[in-house]
Amino acid sequence: MHRLSSYLGGTWQPGQGQAAVLVNPATEAPLAEVAAAGGLGEALQWARRTGGANLRALSWRERGERLGALATLLHGAREELIAIAVANGGNTRGDAKFDIDGAIGVVAGYASIAAGLHGGHLVDGEAAPLHKGSKLRAQHVLTPRQGAAIHINAFNFPAWGMLGKFAVAFAAGVPVVSKPATSTAMLAARIAELVLAPGVLPEGAFQLLLGPAGDLLDHVGPQDVVAFTGSADTGARIRGHARVLGTNARVNIEADSLNAAVIGPDVRSGTELFDLIVRDCAIELTQKAGQKCTATRRILVPTALLGELRDAVVGRLAATAARTGDPADDSNRMGPLSSAAQQRDARAGVATLGARTSRVLGDPERRNFAGVADGVGYFLEPILLEATAEDALDPAAPFHHHEVFGPVATLLPYDGGVQTAAQIVAAGEGSLVGTLYSDDREFTARATVALAPHLGRLVLACEKIAAASLAPGCVFPVANHGGPGRAGDGAELGGQHGLELYLQRTTLQGGAAELARLLSAESPKPAD
Amino acid sequence: MHRLSSYLGGTWQPGQGQAAVLVNPATEAPLAEVAAAGGLGEALQWARRTGGANLRALSWRERGERLGALATLLHGAREELIAIAVANGGNTRGDAKFDIDGAIGVVAGYASIAAGLHGGHLVDGEAAPLHKGSKLRAQHVLTPRQGAAIHINAFNFPAWGMLGKFAVAFAAGVPVVSKPATSTAMLAARIAELVLAPGVLPEGAFQLLLGPAGDLLDHVGPQDVVAFTGSADTGARIRGHARVLGTNARVNIEADSLNAAVIGPDVRSGTELFDLIVRDCAIELTQKAGQKCTATRRILVPTALLGELRDAVVGRLAATAARTGDPADDSNRMGPLSSAAQQRDARAGVATLGARTSRVLGDPERRNFAGVADGVGYFLEPILLEATAEDALDPAAPFHHHEVFGPVATLLPYDGGVQTAAQIVAAGEGSLVGTLYSDDREFTARATVALAPHLGRLVLACEKIAAASLAPGCVFPVANHGGPGRAGDGAELGGQHGLELYLQRTTLQGGAAELARLLSAESPKPAD
Repeated sequence: MHRLSSYLGGTWQPGQGQAAVLVNPATEAPLAEVAAAGGLGEALQWARRTGGANLRALSWRERGERLGALATLLHGAREELIAIAVANGGNTRGDAKFDIDGAIGVVAGYASIAAGLHGGHLVDGEAAPLHKGSKLRAQHVLTPRQGAAIHINAFNFPAWGMLGKFAVAFAAGVPVVSKPATSTAMLAARIAELVLAPGVLPEGAFQLLLGPAGDLLDHVGPQDVVAFTGSADTGARIRGHARVLGTNARVNIEADSLNAAVIGPDVRSGTELFDLIVRDCAIELTQKAGQKCTATRRILVPTALLGELRDAVVGRLAATAARTGDPADDSNRMGPLSSAAQQRDARAGVATLGARTSRVLGDPERRNFAGVADGVGYFLEPILLEATAEDALDPAAPFHHHEVFGPVATLLPYDGGVQTAAQIVAAGEGSLVGTLYSDDREFTARATVALAPHLGRLVLACEKIAAASLAPGCVFPVANHGGPGRAGDGAELGGQHGLELYLQRTTLQGGAAELARLLSAESPKPAD
Repeated sequence: MHRLSSYLGGTWQPGQGQAAVLVNPATEAPLAEVAAAGGLGEALQWARRTGGANLRALSWRERGERLGALATLLHGAREELIAIAVANGGNTRGDAKFDIDGAIGVVAGYASIAAGLHGGHLVDGEAAPLHKGSKLRAQHVLTPRQGAAIHINAFNFPAWGMLGKFAVAFAAGVPVVSKPATSTAMLAARIAELVLAPGVLPEGAFQLLLGPAGDLLDHVGPQDVVAFTGSADTGARIRGHARVLGTNARVNIEADSLNAAVIGPDVRSGTELFDLIVRDCAIELTQKAGQKCTATRRILVPTALLGELRDAVVGRLAATAARTGDPADDSNRMGPLSSAAQQRDARAGVATLGARTSRVLGDPERRNFAGVADGVGYFLEPILLEATAEDALDPAAPFHHHEVFGPVATLLPYDGGVQTAAQIVAAGEGSLVGTLYSDDREFTARATVALAPHLGRLVLACEKIAAASLAPGCVFPVANHGGPGRAGDGAELGGQHGLELYLQRTTLQGGAAELARLLSAESPKPAD
């Protein structure tokens, strides 16, 4: 079987010991295998010494140019990458494009951000007098950390997860060791081959670790950055790792998120806004078979609108349920979950939520799907649950805490009040994204203030922009990606802010004239 | 004996169980006692519900005005506070002013920062098109987290530590539960009485927890912020606490720091810059008896200048050594360490550093000090150590890792090269502050780039501004306070950036016109 290789310390390594088999999750056909790689401490040192020095020797603009060229290169390989995502990821063609085009978009986005910066460090704000009347000034600057970026990614976005994190770190001047999730690693491995072709990146700027993370975190240093996407439990283990705590290596986590859509009390059926809500709900539930950290999991609907919304969403979902099957067939609209384990977890999750919800649509045990034999593939059809308005207010209810990572969401009826909506959203204890659908400006203004502290991103949709609005699960490089609390309290992307994860903010304190001269001079190269 | 009380959930609590006795560290005379308080989960809830709601009901400007009034109030109590710091803190009058005036300075500084802001949330940067050609915009806003700020402070700055952290959280709209270190808690307790006088602050905005932290962290929630100053070991325990990890409560740590002063290869004796270096070294070694997290611990001196610098610094320190004693006597220049435990730890630390240094000045076992009987008080005279240039380059040498929290520093001869200096500074694995003394612009420019990633603040001093320059251990509200790695990777103060510890950054995503209208409208009050 085809063995995928890690790239560490400048060489391709097929790994050792028992191999894990990667399959097509629709057909269960084996596709490739990966085995554990070693020498992880040396890999981090190579990143810090060779990669870091090479990256810091480039200007912001030069790093931006490299990213721009990479985006073009990847775009050229798009069809090949889509085919891999369909085969190993269970992605429909649309799902695959969402991942791959999104990934190229982040690379291109940070190419543009980096190309717009100049100098060897980012001057941050204005120089401020140290105290009233002082000749001395304090000026913040941001410089690349002299460590490695360790990226540990989730299975659901092998392209976007890897390249999105990489683009930001590279733009900031920090070399990357990237560990994709094993079950969908074929796409990440192929992208890595493209990225690592001669002449694309400076030596040491990117390494690929396939298979288990092994003792990687035991080698973390004080200038390193660990960025993780995945479950809250694993996130807590990373943040609580003895070496991570002992070095205060910087950690960014994107984890569980019970994203909520809040439908305003003014929304009526028959409007473009209503149709947008139905479309967004259906997209968020079924895109990538619901395996998105930004997918809407809780739909807050005013009690008066509940019946109409339920019927409209069910209509959409039923059509997708009828066309769920092997994504290699373009007529299928939804593919399988990515692995047997995910299917098992999702079914268990539906049962957990079942304690406080009724099932409106979907059979978690359904076994017949289009294009595959009965019982083959890790499919789960779209499932819509519904709670009572009373249960929706209970912060201990499982739909506020338990993220079912599949095509599953819960309707939560509420009274249409800002305070009630805020209370329900807050019961999720921090989310990546929320959505507000309303034409009531007063409701929108008050809800924005009440919801924002619990969210990394808040999508505001109204009748006027309904045609242009994009489903909330779609993330762009200019927008913050991360959320407080359960979502990990992390922050990725967000334009220039995204770079800060990899930079050290330092106040330069000195004479006003001397500081101005220092910072206006041609950017000096780092230490000889 | 006078029992100091905690203020929790709206009432003063004398605490229960065995009391700890606070003493005068110069005379060992008992002064007061504190005992453990309970109901900490309820205290946090009171902060979040009552304090948070009250603070968010005020505008930035109104919160700034409250801080301004508080600064005036505290200034009026200055002499009383200084007397307490001298008695319970072992502070000279100068040390006490450094703490208390510094504290009032941060309160006044954030009064001014908050008063300069407007609206209910901080619009952060410009709205960006979501993607090229899109009508949709992404606009970052910063809103107060809806949790409590838990402040756990060190013994060395009972005023500045408590009020500095408080001022930032209050300005940001987040209520505070403050836990001072027990040994020097008299000053913090008196300040708390002033802060908690009727009419000064909104109800629930500030609480005081004296004695042990008890089960405080077991009640942390996902919107809370824990800000800690103290040892790296305790910092790691806080960051690794199961509930902190489980909720992703935000944590900021200021911990151990082997701050370095780097003397450029161009510096000559007989210059104002040379005299500044000598003065700064002496101040950093002896102010607060060296018990400052920002004190210079490592002095990098070009080999050619070593003899002259050593002699000059020794001359200054010897004069202070002769005037070390009871700080109640204004003729004494340095007081004791703050407790018997600190004296024991500092002596042990000098022994640890002794393995790779020679002692230039100071006897760690000296027992006779001015104004007290032999062997009474927790004194340690100024101690200057010196390493070889070879040992200075060894990253495993103890002076790069072990912070002796007392009047102790080590001379590290080096070759005057930027790369060598950077290597030595980096061996400290992250520090709060560093200092560069040089008139060589090229050296300064290159060293700035090389050192900045390892530092939270870098003080640049040269001949021209020698008269105006301030010792590096002095922290101002406009400058970042925090450092990577061993220093905790935290960030406090830094002007408006300091507020971000207590704010959630959220991207609002929506139509350009709709977003502009929303953000230009009169700031709405939070949820009804």
